[in-house]
Amino acid sequence: MIIVNGGVTAPQGFFANGVKAGIKESGRKDLALIVSEEPAAVAAAFTTNVFKASPVRVSLDHLGARHHRAIIVNSGNANCANGKTGDRDARSMATFAARALAFAESEVLVASTGIIGRRLPIEKIRNAVPELVAGLSRSGGAVFSETIITTDTRKKELAVKVKLGSSVVTIGGACKGVGMIYPQLSPARHATMLCFITTDAAISRAMLTAALGEAMDGSFNMISVDGDMSTNDSCFLMANGLAGNRRITSRGSAYRKFTAALTFLAAHLAHEMVRDGEGATRFVAIEVKGARSPADARRIARKVSTSNLLKCCINGGDPNWGRVVAASGSSGVVFDPDRVDVYLGGVKVFANGSSLARYDTARVRENFRKKEVAITIDLKGGKASATAWTCDLSKKYVAINAEYST
Amino acid sequence: MIIVNGGVTAPQGFFANGVKAGIKESGRKDLALIVSEEPAAVAAAFTTNVFKASPVRVSLDHLGARHHRAIIVNSGNANCANGKTGDRDARSMATFAARALAFAESEVLVASTGIIGRRLPIEKIRNAVPELVAGLSRSGGAVFSETIITTDTRKKELAVKVKLGSSVVTIGGACKGVGMIYPQLSPARHATMLCFITTDAAISRAMLTAALGEAMDGSFNMISVDGDMSTNDSCFLMANGLAGNRRITSRGSAYRKFTAALTFLAAHLAHEMVRDGEGATRFVAIEVKGARSPADARRIARKVSTSNLLKCCINGGDPNWGRVVAASGSSGVVFDPDRVDVYLGGVKVFANGSSLARYDTARVRENFRKKEVAITIDLKGGKASATAWTCDLSKKYVAINAEYST
Repeated sequence: MIIVNGGVTAPQGFFANGVKAGIKESGRKDLALIVSEEPAAVAAAFTTNVFKASPVRVSLDHLGARHHRAIIVNSGNANCANGKTGDRDARSMATFAARALAFAESEVLVASTGIIGRRLPIEKIRNAVPELVAGLSRSGGAVFSETIITTDTRKKELAVKVKLGSSVVTIGGACKGVGMIYPQLSPARHATMLCFITTDAAISRAMLTAALGEAMDGSFNMISVDGDMSTNDSCFLMANGLAGNRRITSRGSAYRKFTAALTFLAAHLAHEMVRDGEGATRFVAIEVKGARSPADARRIARKVSTSNLLKCCINGGDPNWGRVVAASGSSGVVFDPDRVDVYLGGVKVFANGSSLARYDTARVRENFRKKEVAITIDLKGGKASATAWTCDLSKKYVAINAEYST
Repeated sequence: MIIVNGGVTAPQGFFANGVKAGIKESGRKDLALIVSEEPAAVAAAFTTNVFKASPVRVSLDHLGARHHRAIIVNSGNANCANGKTGDRDARSMATFAARALAFAESEVLVASTGIIGRRLPIEKIRNAVPELVAGLSRSGGAVFSETIITTDTRKKELAVKVKLGSSVVTIGGACKGVGMIYPQLSPARHATMLCFITTDAAISRAMLTAALGEAMDGSFNMISVDGDMSTNDSCFLMANGLAGNRRITSRGSAYRKFTAALTFLAAHLAHEMVRDGEGATRFVAIEVKGARSPADARRIARKVSTSNLLKCCINGGDPNWGRVVAASGSSGVVFDPDRVDVYLGGVKVFANGSSLARYDTARVRENFRKKEVAITIDLKGGKASATAWTCDLSKKYVAINAEYST
């Protein structure tokens, strides 16, 4: 696998664009589109929030179609909590794109991100669609990834190439989201992170869905900025088959290579979201080892990743590992506290459930003041492990979210 | 029921004191004691964290005794994550008090609060016990409640009197805790809030335990400052029978009156903790109505109460109710989103799953800038309800916890 330049238009046969429809008060680009020139198999995953935004509801409905051709996305307005009007507006977004492209409405998927509870300015979207479609290009991935951002400080995209047999398959992706980030995405269910991944691999929809599930469990489903789950989180994976590889229809070596590359790409994008997390100054990896099951390891790692107290002391560069211990015991997972070891930046500070009288405190302090902080919790009770990623909690996070006006 | 002056020494037959043992670096009082002149029935509840501090482990062990006489408490050091040495130190605290008072060791319960992972200075405690015991008095409730605090800005205590038959029963309480506050206490299991409640009621231990469980579910178990569950949370309720009421041994009217008064007192103390929450500027009540079960209502209310995004916008005085909606849908409880109404300060802003085009925005803004903010979520799917209490998330919270040095 190699990393290559580009994002969603790196794979063959994908076109994209982004324009200013006037949804964002800032006047920045806010309406984006991805199109596959061939009908594409799609796997998608959405937030498990009971309140699902209208674009999520409409996309879930449109996923009933066999193939898909396009995804239309707006930023600046979540189109959530707008009732039946919101559903109608989300459907209209798809319709406008479908008509302009001569696709069936159900071949077009929809995503939105921005403020909750304000009606989508649907006429502005209608008026902008012709320009959006006219500007579609094979190099449009960059403008696409700029258009979908809200409070993000930068665009997030990546592309990789992987060899399957004698064919080279490309996977490209773009995502947005730096606040209200605690995704719990479930394939063919309902995450305000948005992620769009394209590939020219030939792969069955069942295998595409399986690959997306695996990739998310090692990426988006293990990140947190603030522990708040969105109503709009959505992750789409489109595969149009143009790479000409032998079609992946089972969990063989090609599936495994494809899934490994997809997971790498998804993890990179997920980490980018955390690094750009609202007010974030440090990137934190929390590894739980020695758990009885992967589910236990994931649950503990995610619980520790949402500890406000831990995130504050990381902000202050203070290695207060007592907060790691307290958080790890509060997830609901049962384990033997008297066997647990804790490492900060590779230095053991806690062994067999007890603080160590002596350790290299200078090194621990130094590790805790780096841009990247690593925490390991070894339960010594099994063989399963998992890693969650988060950022620190800063005064700037509070400022951003106290002053974000409705 | 009437509110009276005092705290843990308001009921008959209780004595208390607090002294400087030298545990706190600030040099403030840090060792406290409550003694009942008669053997008392005790109900206790502790944190459900897998990591339980040594004083919690020792108190759980001592709860095997039939009656109890005293509780010794230190602040400034949690005696947590200190392994077997910590357990031995916690037991020594009980032993020192027991010897000085001529009680059995198992008649003495123990509680600690402060930093995790540093050994308790047990010799300082041994040296301070004689002065602590010598100064026990019927008016010692006030010094007791001052001694147990850590980052609290003020002491928290209350006493109430309730008439049971021809007798007047007094209940007094003191608590501490303004950070690492997300208690999940369970009777006869293991909460860093500490709460000590005394009463001169005559009541069986079984009924005392039941009453404490009910009181906690309407108080401590519904508060959050930061969503972080402690390793040391403990709540003790001692009843010495000196009021001379007809002994409560079943769930009759006396039990109900006693439990109502106890719940009032516990809720007052719990609210005081939230009002004094680290960096808090506002007190927030989140009521969930129309749920299918009390457990559902509690789970949703508590989930909303831990939303960092909501807590930030409350800090900013911005009525961003979309964050209420998003948080309420993320608890894991299933309900019909299209029936839900949301009220801010009594004003309906969201009806049947959709934003209202018109409401009194000026009044909502005004309500959101008060010291007390009320949010109601009506699921309209049942008859159960619950209220959770929290505070806003401020830059000061971050400062307190980023700069708290280990």
